[in-house]
Amino acid sequence: MHGAVLYGPGDVRFEERAEPAIVEPTDAVIALAASCICGSDLWPYRGANPITRPTPMGHEYCGVVEEVGREVRNVRPGQFVIGSFFASDNTCPNCAAGYQTSCQRMQPVIGAQAPRLRVPLADGTLVPTRDLPGADLVPSLLALSDVMGTGWFAAEAAGVKPGGTVVVVGDGAVGLLGVLSAKQMGAARIVAMSRHEPRQRLAREFGATDVVVERGEEGIARIKEMTQGIGADSVLECVGTQEAMQQAIRVTRPGGSIGYVGVPHGVSLEGVDLFFRLVRIHGGPAPVRRYLPSLVDLVFDGTINPGKVFDLTLPLDRVADGYRAMDERRAIKTLLRP
Amino acid sequence: MHGAVLYGPGDVRFEERAEPAIVEPTDAVIALAASCICGSDLWPYRGANPITRPTPMGHEYCGVVEEVGREVRNVRPGQFVIGSFFASDNTCPNCAAGYQTSCQRMQPVIGAQAPRLRVPLADGTLVPTRDLPGADLVPSLLALSDVMGTGWFAAEAAGVKPGGTVVVVGDGAVGLLGVLSAKQMGAARIVAMSRHEPRQRLAREFGATDVVVERGEEGIARIKEMTQGIGADSVLECVGTQEAMQQAIRVTRPGGSIGYVGVPHGVSLEGVDLFFRLVRIHGGPAPVRRYLPSLVDLVFDGTINPGKVFDLTLPLDRVADGYRAMDERRAIKTLLRP
Repeated sequence: MHGAVLYGPGDVRFEERAEPAIVEPTDAVIALAASCICGSDLWPYRGANPITRPTPMGHEYCGVVEEVGREVRNVRPGQFVIGSFFASDNTCPNCAAGYQTSCQRMQPVIGAQAPRLRVPLADGTLVPTRDLPGADLVPSLLALSDVMGTGWFAAEAAGVKPGGTVVVVGDGAVGLLGVLSAKQMGAARIVAMSRHEPRQRLAREFGATDVVVERGEEGIARIKEMTQGIGADSVLECVGTQEAMQQAIRVTRPGGSIGYVGVPHGVSLEGVDLFFRLVRIHGGPAPVRRYLPSLVDLVFDGTINPGKVFDLTLPLDRVADGYRAMDERRAIKTLLRP
Repeated sequence: MHGAVLYGPGDVRFEERAEPAIVEPTDAVIALAASCICGSDLWPYRGANPITRPTPMGHEYCGVVEEVGREVRNVRPGQFVIGSFFASDNTCPNCAAGYQTSCQRMQPVIGAQAPRLRVPLADGTLVPTRDLPGADLVPSLLALSDVMGTGWFAAEAAGVKPGGTVVVVGDGAVGLLGVLSAKQMGAARIVAMSRHEPRQRLAREFGATDVVVERGEEGIARIKEMTQGIGADSVLECVGTQEAMQQAIRVTRPGGSIGYVGVPHGVSLEGVDLFFRLVRIHGGPAPVRRYLPSLVDLVFDGTINPGKVFDLTLPLDRVADGYRAMDERRAIKTLLRP
């Protein structure tokens, strides 16, 4: 089969790769209904993470099980499944506590920008849907594999509560789905920080009550004006840069919470600054697996439609165009059809 | 009157100071039943914070109101009162949210190592007791002014829950009272990290179920052994150094919480490290005012006896000996009698 392989900054190739196969008895192989490109794929694409050897790309997936290893009990060929970007056994103490991304047997899932995929620890990782979904549901189910669950975790880590005030820093797919998550959790006021008109529109559609286009000191001042001078209850940091984290810290009220899910690149926090600001911080690789069953239900019953973040759909062999479009911010998120 | 004044590292003098008086109409002046020396006083005493001019010391206090300004309504002369180290109006949005140490009108209280003290924003800051306490209750009521409330906040910030596993880093008065707080909150297992026998004994008396004497990698390994290999639910960081914070981060389970109340000195956190460890962090100057009414009740009814942290009592004029004893770790905490 062919799949996406990153060779170096800006150099994604669609080329021959080995057919996925059962390696461990706990594996499954699935035929992907769709795959996509993640904001976090742009870090190595832009050279922010060094590429030491050709790397198969893609970690978001959903599709139909083709084959399972002999120890797999919970999923079977023919089922439609969704999994997280980190495989987990879903039974270890960290999984039991709801932190499957810290599973003691955790393995990254790689190479999903391809027609077929090997998923380790299939019993713990994959969540089958009750019915085979129609094609219209596939984008939203695919979004659950990472960005929707990540936005949800950001909102939960930021302690979003009914009636609360929420600020979302970052208008990528995760930030936009953070808006949607905050809305689902009952936030009264949701401020999206965005200067991109199409993204502002989607933020409003997902539940943003306000859009702030200013950044830096001006952006902070605008949020303070909107919040009795003290800052927001909950702030979602969905970028991963020092600038975004500082923005988040400075618009959070004392005792308020920051949920951060952008993979930090060059982020460093001064203890004494955090101390006197009295903010709460929680974040990391989202334990998407924890949320999958309930989010699948919300997609099937039409409550949420996170697939709207895909504003570009390409055939898999044009994956390089998809990276370019996201890198240049022409697309929020690219869906790839096998 | 005479009071303690810090001139430079190791140089505390007991010398003539101006008599406290009502300056603002919201002030009160109180005659102190007792005062004490705080672990945080040791930072400037040891030269970790620069002293640019002679500085009146002391921020922990309780005593009898002598005089109030004309706008004061909630306290009156003759009442026994306790207040926090930061004066607050207790009405601004931050106070209303329970973060009185971020009060929009916040002022530090200074010069409490003296017989009399001016307290700003008396209505918001001071909590009167229902009755005049007996002399036996004074040490415990004094402890509420800072260390007990700070230990309580550390435990609350660390999300201590009934049945939870707690680790306390730091065996000063705040750490020991963090143990007591965790016990009150129903923690099932409370591990005190301490290598000082008298402090270990007090930790056990306050509710510690285990004592770990190892530090660094060995200390981390011991905690992991005790917690299914994953770390504790709640960790209280009660020191303020990089070493203590790293210890705290590394013994917290993914999804667990760190409450940090040691004033950070040279503490810097790498975003990417926090991210992959998935820990929660909350801390800062404890909003002691929030807890005062309920903690006063717990002292009066004999449920808690935080005054046990005072293992040295000196007359006020020997304040310099008190600093020395704490600096050399001969005393946990020094109570000063006017």
